[in-house]
Amino acid sequence: MSITPEQREQLIAAAFSARDAAYSPYSKFRVGAALLSTDGKIIKGANIENASYGGTICAERTALVKAVSDGTKTFSAIAVVSDVASAISPCGICRQFIREFCKLEMPILLVPADYSATAKTGEKGSVLDVTLGELLPHSFGPEHLEMPRGE
Amino acid sequence: MSITPEQREQLIAAAFSARDAAYSPYSKFRVGAALLSTDGKIIKGANIENASYGGTICAERTALVKAVSDGTKTFSAIAVVSDVASAISPCGICRQFIREFCKLEMPILLVPADYSATAKTGEKGSVLDVTLGELLPHSFGPEHLEMPRGE
Amino acid sequence: MSITPEQREQLIAAAFSARDAAYSPYSKFRVGAALLSTDGKIIKGANIENASYGGTICAERTALVKAVSDGTKTFSAIAVVSDVASAISPCGICRQFIREFCKLEMPILLVPADYSATAKTGEKGSVLDVTLGELLPHSFGPEHLEMPRGE
Amino acid sequence: MSITPEQREQLIAAAFSARDAAYSPYSKFRVGAALLSTDGKIIKGANIENASYGGTICAERTALVKAVSDGTKTFSAIAVVSDVASAISPCGICRQFIREFCKLEMPILLVPADYSATAKTGEKGSVLDVTLGELLPHSFGPEHLEMPRGE
Ligand SMILES: [Zn+2]
Ligand SMILES: [Zn+2]
Ligand SMILES: [Zn+2]
Ligand SMILES: [Zn+2]
Repeated sequence: MSITPEQREQLIAAAFSARDAAYSPYSKFRVGAALLSTDGKIIKGANIENASYGGTICAERTALVKAVSDGTKTFSAIAVVSDVASAISPCGICRQFIREFCKLEMPILLVPADYSATAKTGEKGSVLDVTLGELLPHSFGPEHLEMPRGE
Repeated sequence: MSITPEQREQLIAAAFSARDAAYSPYSKFRVGAALLSTDGKIIKGANIENASYGGTICAERTALVKAVSDGTKTFSAIAVVSDVASAISPCGICRQFIREFCKLEMPILLVPADYSATAKTGEKGSVLDVTLGELLPHSFGPEHLEMPRGE
Repeated sequence: MSITPEQREQLIAAAFSARDAAYSPYSKFRVGAALLSTDGKIIKGANIENASYGGTICAERTALVKAVSDGTKTFSAIAVVSDVASAISPCGICRQFIREFCKLEMPILLVPADYSATAKTGEKGSVLDVTLGELLPHSFGPEHLEMPRGE
Repeated sequence: MSITPEQREQLIAAAFSARDAAYSPYSKFRVGAALLSTDGKIIKGANIENASYGGTICAERTALVKAVSDGTKTFSAIAVVSDVASAISPCGICRQFIREFCKLEMPILLVPADYSATAKTGEKGSVLDVTLGELLPHSFGPEHLEMPRGE
């Protein structure tokens, strides 16, 4: 599960592009996400808010339901960018949603809004590279609903 | 806000086709939805469930976030079909989500799984035609968050 | 399924009181709800928001999970009040959540923030009396998951 | 932020007791949670499911909205137990919801259904002690919505 430097740059660019379609009149907080499928497609998502705040769907989940409902279910990486300079991490809801379809070692690229392709790790403008397993340790997943039960 | 008989048949066919991509290992209940945009595009969605049941996203919302995150925000109709013979109606979450983007008079086509293009209203296999306003009366929407407040 | 005038006033007063506990730093929109159980208890709820907007839980759902998790599952009425003068209706998510436990004829009292106990129907300060069935027509409920399926 | 051995046993017992009120006809998976407030109260929650799976509210969130809507907003610990023998961890939605009100160092006790008060760490029947920060690293929280924005 590795991506090439070219794919990485394309994925980051797609996350920025995805952000333009955010519908966030309530939070005024735009988020863009881009998923890379194992067969090389890039699927973009943005946050779509709702007057009933609880109905809001984040950028990461938007990208995932787009992909899955089009028949794509295996992924190599996801990149996320918001409007703030520092790298912002997926909310817990999205971590759980990603968990349904992705391996724990899948890379998640947290991209700062002031991203610079030449920044080194830890520098201003640098991407924070994490994995799903790092963001959702001791995770609950589909397999737990199959476990033997009893008092 | 009217659709031609041809668009209607295409929309219904798209809802059936969308249903094939449902990810519903928990409910075993597949749902497909198809949105018609005002510029004539058809956008398909299916229900995508989650091991944490609360994370589940229905077919109607999947179709809407796909459309909106691709820049399409105005719609003429939506059709919904599930695995049961009788017409099934959107859940309240989806009604609220549709409310964010659609007019109250927008047609919602509730399609039975045993749909027949030649069935007349009320017959076996016939579509139940409703509107968003009929499904969500006295609705709460974006405009209510802008109202003057005070004790 | 009827409530006495005394219960009605108590329920409305409880909804106002419940509103004080709202946690709504994002919307700045406070909502209070009060449920009347069939055995005469009043259970209060307020909206509890979340930085990830999608995690937000409304006042009506808060009241319901409080009741159900304490073993109370049958209800006679619910009253809802917000910060705006006009009566505000439950969002679709809450209508669906109420549907899980309540009969379609259950009264839902939509209370304006400028409520006056002496206002007549339709007057300034008057309560809008509706039922669950009126707010969620053609509803989808627990029984639909039990229906026979097939193409 | 420490709890006494007595409080710990009371909290675990409350989580088991809370589980009895689960409403989980769809997953058949019961979960109980018990919150300890900083002023020594124990608040119980159970999972309350919904025919529209997405409406489901987990035990942990039920406990939190009960507490907060009753005016209790600071907590010392939470314990969670399900029907499966091994310790089950909160879903991502609940981690995010806990994050809204609790410090990252708050203890979360993951209690196996075959819990034994005398089991040692790692033994059959032993509790898995984690913290919120361990379950939700690089977390997104209320403070991020206040950050300066711009490209
Ligand atoms: Zn999210
Ligand atoms: Zn729905
Ligand atoms: Zn609501
Ligand atoms: Zn949960």
